[in-house]
Amino acid sequence: MLAPRSPALGHRFVRVRSDLGELDALIVTHLPNIAYLTGFTGSAGVLVLMRHRATLIVDFRYATAARTRIASQPDLVQTVSVVVADQNIDQTLVKVLEEEAPQKIGIESQRMSVARFNTLSGTLTRHTSERVPSLVPTERIVERARAVKDSDEIAVFREAGRRLASAARELPEFVQAGRSEREIAADVDALLRQHGFDRPAFDTIVASGPNAALPHARPTWRRVEVTDGVVLDFGGVYDGYCVDLTRTVQLGQAPENLREMFGAVAEAQRAAIAAIKPGVKASSVDRAARETLASHGLAAAFGHGTGHGLGLEVHEEPRIGRYSETHPDVVLEPGMVFTVEPGAYVEGFGGVRIEDDVLVIDDGCEVLTR
Amino acid sequence: MLAPRSPALGHRFVRVRSDLGELDALIVTHLPNIAYLTGFTGSAGVLVLMRHRATLIVDFRYATAARTRIASQPDLVQTVSVVVADQNIDQTLVKVLEEEAPQKIGIESQRMSVARFNTLSGTLTRHTSERVPSLVPTERIVERARAVKDSDEIAVFREAGRRLASAARELPEFVQAGRSEREIAADVDALLRQHGFDRPAFDTIVASGPNAALPHARPTWRRVEVTDGVVLDFGGVYDGYCVDLTRTVQLGQAPENLREMFGAVAEAQRAAIAAIKPGVKASSVDRAARETLASHGLAAAFGHGTGHGLGLEVHEEPRIGRYSETHPDVVLEPGMVFTVEPGAYVEGFGGVRIEDDVLVIDDGCEVLTR
Repeated sequence: MLAPRSPALGHRFVRVRSDLGELDALIVTHLPNIAYLTGFTGSAGVLVLMRHRATLIVDFRYATAARTRIASQPDLVQTVSVVVADQNIDQTLVKVLEEEAPQKIGIESQRMSVARFNTLSGTLTRHTSERVPSLVPTERIVERARAVKDSDEIAVFREAGRRLASAARELPEFVQAGRSEREIAADVDALLRQHGFDRPAFDTIVASGPNAALPHARPTWRRVEVTDGVVLDFGGVYDGYCVDLTRTVQLGQAPENLREMFGAVAEAQRAAIAAIKPGVKASSVDRAARETLASHGLAAAFGHGTGHGLGLEVHEEPRIGRYSETHPDVVLEPGMVFTVEPGAYVEGFGGVRIEDDVLVIDDGCEVLTR
Repeated sequence: MLAPRSPALGHRFVRVRSDLGELDALIVTHLPNIAYLTGFTGSAGVLVLMRHRATLIVDFRYATAARTRIASQPDLVQTVSVVVADQNIDQTLVKVLEEEAPQKIGIESQRMSVARFNTLSGTLTRHTSERVPSLVPTERIVERARAVKDSDEIAVFREAGRRLASAARELPEFVQAGRSEREIAADVDALLRQHGFDRPAFDTIVASGPNAALPHARPTWRRVEVTDGVVLDFGGVYDGYCVDLTRTVQLGQAPENLREMFGAVAEAQRAAIAAIKPGVKASSVDRAARETLASHGLAAAFGHGTGHGLGLEVHEEPRIGRYSETHPDVVLEPGMVFTVEPGAYVEGFGGVRIEDDVLVIDDGCEVLTR
């Protein structure tokens, strides 16, 4: 019988509120953002975050779960009220907004559909006789807070990383010639549960021989052969948080050029990890991996980014990649957690990827999955 | 070694195109819609559907997978071209739109975020010197086609339903006093794989005793007791398609009022199933279940809808529930597949839910999970 984790969440509200600028309210529709702020983890709900209080709107199915969750957290119980929607969550949302009457209302523009925005905006305009409130598109307000983990989250990540690395050490038992990728993937998923994970964080990848050239391969019925390299990419959800790891396992003697690829990718990962410390740009970490691979003639073989943030979601901020107009660069801060996963892929031949998870600390980074 | 399924998909394009009205193109961004039309199942991509051809835009990671997928389908290979994005899929999307120059371009308004819409719309306006194309919000164009399954899909559903029902018959072995909900849930997931499912279709629910009062409970470490009713709600993905089933297992002798609830829910499910045939409204099926429960004094105990469509997603059209302004009613057609899952929940006491999956046929419905 484990006690449920009940970290103090009040300071997350404070952090996010300080980022509201001139908004009177923020409509939080992205469920992991709601989970981050309130601990509520249902599959539907909206949080209206105002300067001094917040309202969590859920439907019938989650009434008890939401009330229990808030009541169990002394630092939220005064701030967050739970409202159960009669029929439709957004109809209740409009009612709440009418009562509270904020004027400038932020929406999470990357997390709200055009249809929902149009309906909401139309209903608010129709219902509100006098000063029509304005819906202001915002981006990444809660996500920015989430990118820097607090001490409760770091404790979970350390434990989750340790467990995932420990699961990875058992891989050679499963990866054997004659077994199919699918059979191996099922064993990896069972392994995750044995090591205490609630569930896989994403569909486990087992890609053998030529299939390893596909960075996002799905496990097939192909049986692993004695000279194959096998890429295994898998992750687990532990206490709500996602960790993610890739190992490339070589059966028997690898051909010379595959050995060289393996060496180059491992070197690229070391270079990227060595580049990580507070104040450094995410693009510099990516560049360290990319230039190492280029020096081995593998520039074209590495087509994806070097890593991605981890948290309540398996892909979140910060993105460790090349940056452009549309993706402004990120400066690393202590408390950020992300993957470092360079790879090299040659169509028809094979591929190698090596991935670990790191936590940025004051003087560099800590590898969580070693 | 199984051969991959390669159904003819060309007729799906024809069906969707006939629903484009005055649009010159539709930007399909919802991934299950892309999978439905092309067979491509990556985690990123956009399909531009025009009157006589289509372009599938993917990133580096999926270049090989997308090309192979299209090349393997004789009725798509002439129609669909694959373009690999240099950097950002939406930048490439703008290029494709500039080349093809459609004027009225539909977007899937329930599947595109406000941020993405604003960026796309801004870029198109900036790049296009003369006639600026218009982005038109559309709803459910591909989803409407998906709601009526074709013969390939029906064959998959019959097999998947048979397998899920067969897995359900093994439940009593696992549901035993002294075992925790989590242990039982892990066994259910393993059972799904043994019965040929690729993965669970959603997080398995095992809710025992008072926890069964929560319609969407998560498995806890609570150990099942000898007089408990246990709600098990689980599903699997088979050949890409989701099936979903709930059984309420009673250990030992149930208290009188729980037995009555069980009887009422079973009767409500029979009434709903009896109401299903082509031409009937989805709301009538819901009403049949709801009125039966009301006649047993359980109106307030049934707070969710009676069912939901199944397909490439575990929740899709048609929704079987009460209808309102914002949710127009649906008329049932042969080929629709959905769940029928009435339930009754009493806080602090317990709950019952019984769920099966049905296929609408010419003279009624076929229960797929019997």
